[in-house]
Amino acid sequence: MLSEFSLIDRFFARRAAAARPSNADGGTLGIGDDCALLAPRRGEMLAISTDMLVEGRHFFADLDPEALGHKALAVNLSDLAAMGAEPQAFTLAFSLPKADEAWLAAFSEGLFALAELHGCELIGGDTTGGPLNLCITVFGSVPPQTALRRDAARPGDDIWISGTLGDARAGLGVRRGEWHAEPADAALFQTALERPQPRIALGLALRGVAHAALDLSDGLAGDLMHILERSALRASVDIDAVPRSAALRRLAPEVQRRCTLAGGDDYELCFTAPAAARAAVEAAGHEASVPVTRIGTISALDAAHDRPAIAWHDAAGAPLSLTLQGFDHFHAE
Amino acid sequence: MLSEFSLIDRFFARRAAAARPSNADGGTLGIGDDCALLAPRRGEMLAISTDMLVEGRHFFADLDPEALGHKALAVNLSDLAAMGAEPQAFTLAFSLPKADEAWLAAFSEGLFALAELHGCELIGGDTTGGPLNLCITVFGSVPPQTALRRDAARPGDDIWISGTLGDARAGLGVRRGEWHAEPADAALFQTALERPQPRIALGLALRGVAHAALDLSDGLAGDLMHILERSALRASVDIDAVPRSAALRRLAPEVQRRCTLAGGDDYELCFTAPAAARAAVEAAGHEASVPVTRIGTISALDAAHDRPAIAWHDAAGAPLSLTLQGFDHFHAE
Repeated sequence: MLSEFSLIDRFFARRAAAARPSNADGGTLGIGDDCALLAPRRGEMLAISTDMLVEGRHFFADLDPEALGHKALAVNLSDLAAMGAEPQAFTLAFSLPKADEAWLAAFSEGLFALAELHGCELIGGDTTGGPLNLCITVFGSVPPQTALRRDAARPGDDIWISGTLGDARAGLGVRRGEWHAEPADAALFQTALERPQPRIALGLALRGVAHAALDLSDGLAGDLMHILERSALRASVDIDAVPRSAALRRLAPEVQRRCTLAGGDDYELCFTAPAAARAAVEAAGHEASVPVTRIGTISALDAAHDRPAIAWHDAAGAPLSLTLQGFDHFHAE
Repeated sequence: MLSEFSLIDRFFARRAAAARPSNADGGTLGIGDDCALLAPRRGEMLAISTDMLVEGRHFFADLDPEALGHKALAVNLSDLAAMGAEPQAFTLAFSLPKADEAWLAAFSEGLFALAELHGCELIGGDTTGGPLNLCITVFGSVPPQTALRRDAARPGDDIWISGTLGDARAGLGVRRGEWHAEPADAALFQTALERPQPRIALGLALRGVAHAALDLSDGLAGDLMHILERSALRASVDIDAVPRSAALRRLAPEVQRRCTLAGGDDYELCFTAPAAARAAVEAAGHEASVPVTRIGTISALDAAHDRPAIAWHDAAGAPLSLTLQGFDHFHAE
């Protein structure tokens, strides 16, 4: 049996208090009451996202708990980035088979290192015994008129991707023995899988520049469809333009394609912006120190193409038919 | 494998949209984007609480899923009640061993029935495969200056309890075979255990009347200490004044005491208010249609009593020494 109060206090509450940003609202009430109290910045709204991570499904049972602490928060911060929201706070609920101090120390270290990097305060939580399960809910502040919504793409928009895609899926494949990679490449893939970097700075820089955005958690082919369906539009994408790391380019071409289009756990941003904003998008990428790559174009539905869909083509313009689907989830085993 | 999008859409997203309160803020963005957007009422703050429920620990595996849907939200709404906050919205993340449609239909029915009763909109969530685990984060709006905080008790305050205590723990004991009850009493105990009623109306009526409040989830003896510790005060409590149902009064006296003081899952409010506010507290209870009972008094620390503690006595004023402790959690098995 876990002793809820001593655990929270030892590994989380004291650290949370110490890490409170110096610009924190004086009215914020954090851990220790029935509720935390939080308000967005004046004139803004709170952007809220929740994710649940289950051992054996979203991460391997032998994952370094420090990396798990990082990743559990990173995937939530990535949702804030995709909204153009500035991180403010998060709650953490988790169940754990036993109160393992070494595990908790490492997990909380990974969690707070990332939280402090983004000025994101732990304001509440719940701990209990049970199969390992982590649920984080994250809060950011965003002006509603410049929030990067999925339904805001427009015909003629360019489609952009931050960073590179496919490395996390490549790492999963190496782990599973689906393919092999040189040790240095395998290490890069593993880092991509275990330590995604939420694109917070880019999301903020894209306010007022980009139209629609989301973060890529289930693979480009499936995730881009969410923008198209909610915006009632179509897309044309150049497969060869999808950005890949040098390490991924050393794998077989069909593996590269599978990892970039139907992979998952990329946590890069996919966003749309008008062609007139190309320089502004490049400037946003520069400001955030993240490469941004244009991979396609948004177009309107018409009589011959009356449903949201992605038309894939290669660098030469030759159309390609893909049957790949994005995944709902990773299956670690 | 669960198909995340179809599940969410079928049982949750459509119902959430249909249930959206007519007074919903036009700027709210709910299920289907990276984040939901939410703001408190003008001049207020969001009260936020998160709870995780694990099968076999917080509820029996054979619990009616409709009751589970009710209880999972009720325990979260109870935290809003204890803050004097008005429910606005919630997120739901859960893992489920398999996508059982009958289970999901019943669970969502229990969940939404309570959500709609309190005008609380589902704004986001996450579903995944895994051992049954439910994580709800709930949002209410509260004026920060009248929020019912745990650290706001004052010397001379009365200590009050809403409703009656101990029925849920009595139901657990019947289920476990620790004691027996007549069928009608056992049914009442089971209802108390499975269908707690969050005291939202009372919490709202106590704004500006009560000083400190919390909800009783782990037993009066342990929970009252949270107010005392955070307020740096002591309490004197009349054990015989603690309100009990007629059904509980038919159990043995030592069972009654165990259930009321060291039980759990009551989800009644324990709050403090100045003696001058007795009529106002009674009026708040009347307005909320919940009985309120005065059980003791708050006093300052002094040289002879320099640590927060509860002094228990009986109706005749004779001091009692208790070794009972509140529990961190229920253990269903």
